[in-house]
Amino acid sequence: VAEGLRTVEELARSPLAIVGLLASPAADATPRGAALLAALAARGVPVARVDERDFATAADTESPQGILAIAEIPERALPVPAPGGPLRVLLLDGVQDPGNAGTLVRTAAALGAAATVALPGTVDLWNAKVVRSAMGAHFHHAALATDWPAVLDWLAMHDVALWGADHRGRDVSVVGAPPARLALAVGNEGGGLADAVRTRCDATVAIPIAGAVESLNVAVAAGILLHALRP
Amino acid sequence: VAEGLRTVEELARSPLAIVGLLASPAADATPRGAALLAALAARGVPVARVDERDFATAADTESPQGILAIAEIPERALPVPAPGGPLRVLLLDGVQDPGNAGTLVRTAAALGAAATVALPGTVDLWNAKVVRSAMGAHFHHAALATDWPAVLDWLAMHDVALWGADHRGRDVSVVGAPPARLALAVGNEGGGLADAVRTRCDATVAIPIAGAVESLNVAVAAGILLHALRP
Repeated sequence: VAEGLRTVEELARSPLAIVGLLASPAADATPRGAALLAALAARGVPVARVDERDFATAADTESPQGILAIAEIPERALPVPAPGGPLRVLLLDGVQDPGNAGTLVRTAAALGAAATVALPGTVDLWNAKVVRSAMGAHFHHAALATDWPAVLDWLAMHDVALWGADHRGRDVSVVGAPPARLALAVGNEGGGLADAVRTRCDATVAIPIAGAVESLNVAVAAGILLHALRP
Repeated sequence: VAEGLRTVEELARSPLAIVGLLASPAADATPRGAALLAALAARGVPVARVDERDFATAADTESPQGILAIAEIPERALPVPAPGGPLRVLLLDGVQDPGNAGTLVRTAAALGAAATVALPGTVDLWNAKVVRSAMGAHFHHAALATDWPAVLDWLAMHDVALWGADHRGRDVSVVGAPPARLALAVGNEGGGLADAVRTRCDATVAIPIAGAVESLNVAVAAGILLHALRP
């Protein structure tokens, strides 16, 4: 479910198949909304018209701008690296806040990661709040969930290094050149990485922070690390 | 106004003067809440006890954990750099989302900036939602609002360079060593920096992003830039 003008616009620009649209009069009230509805109708997307009150019962947001689209969740697998090429993948280990998860998907997509992978304990990456926070990044980026044994097999099969974000790790600005194929794992907002994940990491890295502050937001930390560890 | 257990704990650890507490039975229901209430009462902080219903009318959050503190907003001025020492300041130019503003304050504090400065058009940095998103960073970090002429005077007086985050700027990873005294300006979530700010910048810097994604979240971008441009 994609809610709101900007998210539905992004969806319309993506290769994903749109199953249908729900629209209220509010969507027609702006030129941008009217243009989007007309473009999708011209593509043969079924549009269900409802009044504001019925629309509000279907929408998750407080101000959903009168437009909501339903699309199929694309089938995605863990990415296969190009021979000899670099690879970045972001692993989410127990990230629970939908806003954080969405910002993580957006950040990974923007910084060139091939996928964002949710391990068990992480919020559903395709829940409407996550999709909305990601500002449409899902539609062009592999966001998927899998289990830890599948990740372990994938790491071994493709010779991908696993690095974890951990406040006890080495300062990321002094670790030197990162591996060409790297999966970066970030953990739960309060508790960090699960023991099983942390102990499997080939290295753990940290961002030094000022004494009075406890931590960085997980999406900010992931952005800094993915940028610092870019290929 | 500081809401919630963790934020009030951070406030209690800070030098800020707590004017009073509002507590409901929910605050006593956990050992952590009961310990915090006892510690503040021992310091002579007045505690008003109310039932859950009255508490809910005062609290801004849906699950405020039965504790809310009121403290004085500290008087803060633009920071004076130490002679010969480095300085980092984050300027917010029209950041409107309270969650983003709070994460920006938290990020600036964590990455060693001396202050986060709100220019006109930016949300009030001391609004309860901003304070909550910052996870207590306000209590140890100078978060203040001022106007553009005051910033211009301060830049000139203390020989501080002004760099702006702008998608048309130079790749931050190739700009070389940053100035010792640097104010980094980030703009509105949709529109970026105001013209008056961008044209005054001594340099503009960007984070290269993948084609299909429009932008990074403003707090993620600020985190990457403050980290990449650390002294």
